[in-house]
Amino acid sequence: MKLSPVAIFHGPFREKFGIPRQSGLADTLEGTVVLEKAFASPEALRGLEAFGRIWLIWGFSANRQEGWSPTVRPPRLGGNKALGVFATRSPYRPNPLGLSCVRLERIEGTVLHVRGADLMDGTPIYDIKPYIPYADAFPEAAGGFVDEVDWPELTVVLPAGTPLSETETEALREVLAQDPRPRYQQDPQKVYGLSFGAWNVRFRVEGNILTVLTVN
Amino acid sequence: MKLSPVAIFHGPFREKFGIPRQSGLADTLEGTVVLEKAFASPEALRGLEAFGRIWLIWGFSANRQEGWSPTVRPPRLGGNKALGVFATRSPYRPNPLGLSCVRLERIEGTVLHVRGADLMDGTPIYDIKPYIPYADAFPEAAGGFVDEVDWPELTVVLPAGTPLSETETEALREVLAQDPRPRYQQDPQKVYGLSFGAWNVRFRVEGNILTVLTVN
Repeated sequence: MKLSPVAIFHGPFREKFGIPRQSGLADTLEGTVVLEKAFASPEALRGLEAFGRIWLIWGFSANRQEGWSPTVRPPRLGGNKALGVFATRSPYRPNPLGLSCVRLERIEGTVLHVRGADLMDGTPIYDIKPYIPYADAFPEAAGGFVDEVDWPELTVVLPAGTPLSETETEALREVLAQDPRPRYQQDPQKVYGLSFGAWNVRFRVEGNILTVLTVN
Repeated sequence: MKLSPVAIFHGPFREKFGIPRQSGLADTLEGTVVLEKAFASPEALRGLEAFGRIWLIWGFSANRQEGWSPTVRPPRLGGNKALGVFATRSPYRPNPLGLSCVRLERIEGTVLHVRGADLMDGTPIYDIKPYIPYADAFPEAAGGFVDEVDWPELTVVLPAGTPLSETETEALREVLAQDPRPRYQQDPQKVYGLSFGAWNVRFRVEGNILTVLTVN
């Protein structure tokens, strides 16, 4: 099957570092889904505004050439346990499709304003579907390895007077609380740089405290 | 993007008539997901058995050639209201991808035994992902037009002594309770024939009672 993008995602992450590891982890994070020209009819979205959430099926474009292997090492398990690729949401899969459930805030023409996406800016979207609770929501389903590990959030300390809006501040806080560092890095002196929209965010982590040094 | 099937679905429906309109509506319905040769490594499934549910991303192969239009008429609305294609789960979409959450019963080698699928026998599967409740389960999300309509189930009357197993009987009952008739057909004399696995099921509907005449 050949797929063509029906839309492009736009959001504050232009590189992989910092992108939440699943949708919903940074629930305030804003983004837009912009229908591509060939599909840019408001008619194609009629009735979607009555849904609180939507599915995005999208392409892991940044690493398509790297191929796949039968097992992967999920970051949530510290990178030291190999699981089957189909038992994870890893991008390195036979068909590099991503699946994300995002909040639908509003629709303007052929632009969907969403929150909570775990997508990079420029990501091609191959399908948009309404979230249907009776078919999609199973809060009691056993969650495999995801249930087995604690994923404690960091406490985020922001400097006073950043140039960020209130919403951006809250979204950045959610993003950083997830601890974007590679699992094996624990150097409290190391300064990390995160590209967040127009801003460059520098931070350090000591224990479970993440301190933002500058936002500019 | 070009996709290759990673697996093929096998189940009791060899034609479209009778297939539940979403996954989960016939929760007992058995099916198997058989990994394709190029991906048939038990390693690729390691750890998946600890998940209660999985996502299948699959292809609407039977109607790919029919193309898409910006609006469709969902059967749930009686076929008389047009909605945007992206506001529905209609098969007639720009990229004919289906998304279904099914129960994972067990894994044998490279065969996944599932329940509740809304897929036709022979459907190509392009991705298998674990269902992760914190990222996927939002029972309170507003369900758009799906919330607006009642979809009363039919009472199913089965004849005594069919050749079906207990599980098949329960699955058939769930399938028929969904009322597989086209929305506009209300003739109580009309006899419908449903292909269900090896069986041919003949039934009639009067009011909200569906009576199975024969199973053979």
